[in-house]
Order: sequence, then C-alpha cells, then structure tokens
Amino acid sequence: MLASNIQRDQQGRLCFAGQRIEKLAQEYGTPLYLMDEDRIRLNCRMYLNAFRESFGENALPLYASKAASFLQMYRIMAEEGMGVDTVSQGEIFTALRAGFPTEKITFHGDGKTDEDIRFAVENRVGCIVVDNETELGCLEAEAEKQGITQKVLLRITPGIDPHTYEAVNTGKIDVKFGVPIADDQALHFVEKAISMHALDVEGLHCHVGSMVFDEMVFEDTVDVMVAFMKELYNSFNFVTRKLNLGGGYGVRYRENDKVIDIPARIQTLAEHMKKRVAEAGLTMPMVLMEPGRSIVADAGMTVYTVSTVKHLKNFKNYVIVDGGMADNPRYCLYRSAYTVLPGKVAEEGREEIFDLVGRCCESGDILQPGVALPADISRGDLVAVCTTGAYNYSMASNYNRLGRPPVVMLEQGKSRLAVRRETPDDLCALDM
Amino acid sequence: MLASNIQRDQQGRLCFAGQRIEKLAQEYGTPLYLMDEDRIRLNCRMYLNAFRESFGENALPLYASKAASFLQMYRIMAEEGMGVDTVSQGEIFTALRAGFPTEKITFHGDGKTDEDIRFAVENRVGCIVVDNETELGCLEAEAEKQGITQKVLLRITPGIDPHTYEAVNTGKIDVKFGVPIADDQALHFVEKAISMHALDVEGLHCHVGSMVFDEMVFEDTVDVMVAFMKELYNSFNFVTRKLNLGGGYGVRYRENDKVIDIPARIQTLAEHMKKRVAEAGLTMPMVLMEPGRSIVADAGMTVYTVSTVKHLKNFKNYVIVDGGMADNPRYCLYRSAYTVLPGKVAEEGREEIFDLVGRCCESGDILQPGVALPADISRGDLVAVCTTGAYNYSMASNYNRLGRPPVVMLEQGKSRLAVRRETPDDLCALDM
Repeated sequence: MLASNIQRDQQGRLCFAGQRIEKLAQEYGTPLYLMDEDRIRLNCRMYLNAFRESFGENALPLYASKAASFLQMYRIMAEEGMGVDTVSQGEIFTALRAGFPTEKITFHGDGKTDEDIRFAVENRVGCIVVDNETELGCLEAEAEKQGITQKVLLRITPGIDPHTYEAVNTGKIDVKFGVPIADDQALHFVEKAISMHALDVEGLHCHVGSMVFDEMVFEDTVDVMVAFMKELYNSFNFVTRKLNLGGGYGVRYRENDKVIDIPARIQTLAEHMKKRVAEAGLTMPMVLMEPGRSIVADAGMTVYTVSTVKHLKNFKNYVIVDGGMADNPRYCLYRSAYTVLPGKVAEEGREEIFDLVGRCCESGDILQPGVALPADISRGDLVAVCTTGAYNYSMASNYNRLGRPPVVMLEQGKSRLAVRRETPDDLCALDM
Repeated sequence: MLASNIQRDQQGRLCFAGQRIEKLAQEYGTPLYLMDEDRIRLNCRMYLNAFRESFGENALPLYASKAASFLQMYRIMAEEGMGVDTVSQGEIFTALRAGFPTEKITFHGDGKTDEDIRFAVENRVGCIVVDNETELGCLEAEAEKQGITQKVLLRITPGIDPHTYEAVNTGKIDVKFGVPIADDQALHFVEKAISMHALDVEGLHCHVGSMVFDEMVFEDTVDVMVAFMKELYNSFNFVTRKLNLGGGYGVRYRENDKVIDIPARIQTLAEHMKKRVAEAGLTMPMVLMEPGRSIVADAGMTVYTVSTVKHLKNFKNYVIVDGGMADNPRYCLYRSAYTVLPGKVAEEGREEIFDLVGRCCESGDILQPGVALPADISRGDLVAVCTTGAYNYSMASNYNRLGRPPVVMLEQGKSRLAVRRETPDDLCALDM
C-alpha cells in the first residue's frame, strides 16, 4: 500500500487509519473527506523533532495552513507546538478562533489589502512577511497608526529553479512573489525596511517552490541567502535573526514516487547551512520552514460512491462517482496524479482500466484517468482517492451547486466531524 | 468596447450597465461581481422570441443554471418565462426556494445519486433527463415507490465533434454522458425506458458541447437525431414529443471573437430541422435548448483593486489584485481568454503589458496574462475583467480561505445585492 495508514482487512475491505471506510461512509455519507489525525500529529512531531535536533531549540516549522484550513486543524497545530503560516484574513480569523497563539502566526501573501494589514496588526499577529515595497509602506503606516512595532520578515526572490536546481541571476522563478536579489533590488528593499521605526525586521523569507524532491534545492537556496545575509551585514550591519526557507518537501501520491527521508534531509541541510554561515562569519539565524502538504496530504483520503459504470465498446470505461472537480479540482487544474483504490478487492482479482470521473456537468470533470478497478464494479460500490489531505478541501467549490463534503477526523480508532456537510440551506445562506 | 453595456464616461472612467464601477466598488467593496440584470433579461427575451418565432409557441429555452446559480437568478428566469436546467439537489432546492415553477425545471447530470433522484421525484420536477440504464432503473423504482409517473428525456450521444463538426460513428465525444447511438446501444436504452410504466418518455436529449461557434454543429446534430427518431418510430412506434438539443451558442470574450447572430442561427436551424423532420415523415417535436453562458456571460463583470504592481527589469510586469483563482479559476483551468480593462484610461494613453495575477499563494494564480494597462497603474486603482457572468461565481472557491465576493445586480440605473459577501464568520460556519 502507498502509506502505512492504508490497509485492507481479511475480507479485502479498505481501511484507513485502522477504520473500515464502508462503516465511515455509512455513518457520514459520501463524498467524504477522511483525515487521519494521528498521522497529522506524527508528521508535525517529525518536523518539530528534526528541526530541534538539527537547527536547535528555537527553530520552528510553520504549518502552511492553506493546505487544509479549519478550526480543528489549528487546534491540533497549537497542541503540537507548531507555528502556522496564514495567507488571508480568513485564515488568521480561523486560527484565532481556534485559540491558536497569536505570536506563532505568520501572515503572508503577495496581495495583502489595507483591510488585511489592519486586521493582522490589530490582532497582533506574530510576524508579517512583507512581499514588496508598496506593502512595506502600507504596513509601516498601519503599525504607526496603531502605535506598535510590527515584527516582519522580508520576502526575497533568490532565483532558484526548484526543478532544475539551477541558480539563475534574476527573479525568473515564481516572480509574482517577493523582491529579487538581482540588480540590488532586494538590497534596497531591506535598506528601506530597516529604516522604518514602526517595523522590526527580524530577517528574511524565501520560497523556491513546493513539492521539492531534489536534495540540492534547499542547499542552493541557503547558499544564495547566506551570501545575501553577508551582504546585508557588510552594507548595513544588519543581523538576520530569522531565516524562513519556505516549504516544503514532496509527498508521495503514487507508489513509484520517491520516498523522502525528511529528518535526514533536514539534518543535511542544517549541516550545510551551519558550514556556510560559519564561512561567512555570521551567527546562525533562527530557521523556519513552511511545510503544508507534507503535514496533511498523506493524512487524507476521499471516499466516493459509484453512481454509474460505463463500458464503451472499443473505447473506454468510465466509473462515475458522486463527487468530482468540485471537491477535488487538482486533476483538472494540474493533471495531478493520485492513487485510486476500490472499497473491495476484485473478485478473483479481475480488474479493468477505467477513467474515474465526477458528477459535474462538464466533460473535463476527471478525478483520475486510467485507474485499475474491479471489472465488476457497479453503482453503490465505494472508491477511495488517496493522499487528498492537502489542497482538496481547501480548494473545493460549490460548482454545480454541490455542497462540500464533510471532513471527518480519525483518531485512535474513533471518528468525529471536523467540518460538517454543506446542505442546500447552507448554499443559499448568502443569497438575498 | 467589447459589449454595449461597457462604456467610459467623459473622464475616461469605466462604466458597466450605465453605472460607474468606482462608485459600485466604494459601495460594495472589491473583489466584486457585477451582473447587468437588464442584459440578462434581454438575452432571455432574445432566446424566447427566437424560439417562438422559429420553432413555435411551445418551444422553450431552459437556462442552464450551473452557469450562475442563486436565488435572484431563478426569480429572473421565472419572470421571463424561461425553463431551467438543473444538475444537482442544490440547484433544484434554490430554484424551488425562489418560487420557480416546478414543471419547468429539468434535472440533469451523469452522476445522480439515489438521494438526488428521491429529492427530484418528491418535489415533482417537470422532467428528468436520464443519463444511462443504471439510472433508469433507480428512477423507475423511485417513481413507483412514490406512486407517480415521472416525465423523462433520454440522454443520447450522437457522436458529433463540436470543434470539427465531423460526424463520427461512435460516442467518441463527451463520452461520460449519455448512451451512444452506435451499436444500437441507444436503441436498447429507449426500448427499455418506454417499457417502464412509472416513466413517461417524452423524448430525447443530446448535447454536443458548449461554446458552439460553427454553424453546422447543431444542423449535424439534428440530422443524426432525426434519423434516430425515425428509427425509434419504425422500431417501436415511438413518437419523440420533445427534443432537447443541449446548449449553447458561443460568447465573445475578446474583441476578435466572432459575433454570432443567435436569432438568425436559430431560424436557420429550425428551417433545417423542419425540412429533415418532414423528409422523415415525422411530426416536429417540441424543441428545447439549454443556453447558460450566452444568457449570463456578457451580463457579468468582475472588479478588483490593485494591491501591487511589479516591474521586473528585462522580464515581466505584474499587476497583483485582491482576487484571483479563488473567484475566477477559468484561466487556471482552461487558459480562458478575457478582456481586461482599467478603471481609468491611461494618462496620455501610455500603456504597458502586464500579467494580471491574483492574491493566492500560488505562482499559477493568473487571471489573464499579457494585458495592456496604464503604465502608471498602482495600488488602489481598479481593474475589471469582462464577461465574467458565467462560470465565475458558480466555480468560485474559498481557496486561501478567501471569502467569495458579493454578486451585485445592476438594474435600470440602480444596484442591489443578489449574494452578499462571505465573511470570516461564514467561512467557519461548518467548522465543528
């Protein structure tokens, strides 16, 4: 099986986090998002321990909450001692309502509005990552108005391509974010920021892309950033107290995806960084990272009920389920690969290849093409899509005016609702 | 301008449906969906008149409500005398709550659940379009259980490619929907359906794709369907009383898109169909069509406020706005083209080319690349994306935990909320 929390019982029935999906589907209905809380906590602890051991006691992983954002998620993060990275008023609001400690919230994003900035400062968010000079001015004005000193990191574009790990000289990559090091743009950005009395510039933020598999990406980023830290020290006597390396390590969606030993990677990265920092004659900053997907993706599974099966002669087979691009738009958006498992194994193991498609009135509503499922699969059977903990619930829409599925937490053999199912009444709640 | 409801006043300020977008943005905030109600009604009347004149009094266009579905939209459709096509319990529920006449609701979709079928039958939906044999059995059982005769259309796949208007012999196109005519599959489907006592098979449904620009697509479809109607008459003495041709005509998103004279097209189509039907010795069925996009697309405009402008030397310019893929995922999903207009014309007409990007923490969050905007555009300025009335609000998500923008109706120089803005409180409403 793809992950250790996916099993089959002796009758060949699919289980997730030790619980039969059939039983959960009966209790909560389908489509259904399942979240393995024990796995989420394990993933948090893996990052926390690796950070402490490799980078020291004050290093902190921040859960990138856009991966999956709802009240109970922030409560779990608070209990585990994680920080959280937020990108909107909605995320900050939810974290605060969940009782998440304010000082461990980071507020991030390339398009913060005046209202977002006011809200974040007013609520004393621990750190704001400033994306650009326009935002810097707005934030300074707001902090002055509210009479506080706002801690900030400055978003720098190091110019690393996460896929080729080639260091390039301009902000070619991910360019809508941050200020490029190229042409001294970042240098002037920092100079301006440290001159502002209402801001406390704690350090720098960079992000070279999510789903990082190549070992060298973070190391190359560290090289560029440490050189920049040195330049800042030489130019302005500025000490970078914090360095946020963004996120995050890749996740296995299919059996043939690489297994990444994250603690080992973090250890190697820490050694590399300590060496570079020492070579530069600097002091190690507090290191932050923003894992999102690698905290929650493998803690998720989506369960669907088959509506119809079509065997089109000389063409294709379709399994149509009661969900689709409204609850998981990732294949439509990115052609994302997923592992699809039937609720029950095939009789005598006979399988056929099907396109798993959704119920939306749109021919492009595909969850995953070319998946092997029992040849006799039929209406009422269950199908599960694995590794849906990240960017499924959080990207879900009401397309076709479908209510979003509930999120059910699985913990120590028990289950409970974290987000209830959206009803037709809910769908009309904003209508006048 | 792209459409007659988009204008500039003498100061060069953008107006929509005769109202200044700056004033509307001040009143309702941004991002903001505007809907020109007068235009929606005009589009309905265009279809209704063309249908009556060309196909006769009992022909009916059904608004494909997945294009934009909320209470006030169904009220407008009811007032205009349109039918509506629905694809989920949520859409039926909303139509009913809006007081839409039950008998003019059609329920459609390839993945209807038992619960959907029960709900539709219980609420006496006028017509159910049956997608396949599995569904046929479920629907018969439910209608029998509730002791009614359910009117149905049967979804047939004629095998027409809407882009090449090449008639193919198999259900190669749009294959997750319906039953192909090829290999007598549709013939057996109809035979089975007409044998069911709890179902009244009124006729057939087909759909060759949305955004149809080529004149021949509907004509070719009619040829295939009339031939099939003849076959049904010869085989089973079955009279096709209704024929739903699906939808719909293409919409202009950019100046260089074709202008389609829809009434003229409908007239040509009607003449073609009457000829074919007469040749086949059949009686003209009641004709239905499902326009969605062409009813609401050009009635919509989305207004954003600029957060930041980035001029990246030797590379690219970005305008970052306070919305993005959460309120309009269509560029991300389909690379859809849109016309983008600034709130004010450029000083001395100086423009530059920008990528218009969103605020989501994702480098792919692009609303439209390569658009001409004033060279001096800056934070606080307004930008409008045109023709967003279809599949924008209806596909919107809470990605990055962003609340969805309000939908504001513009009517006869007045404005009013149709859907209010989603607040952080709303975002937590389902969280346990």
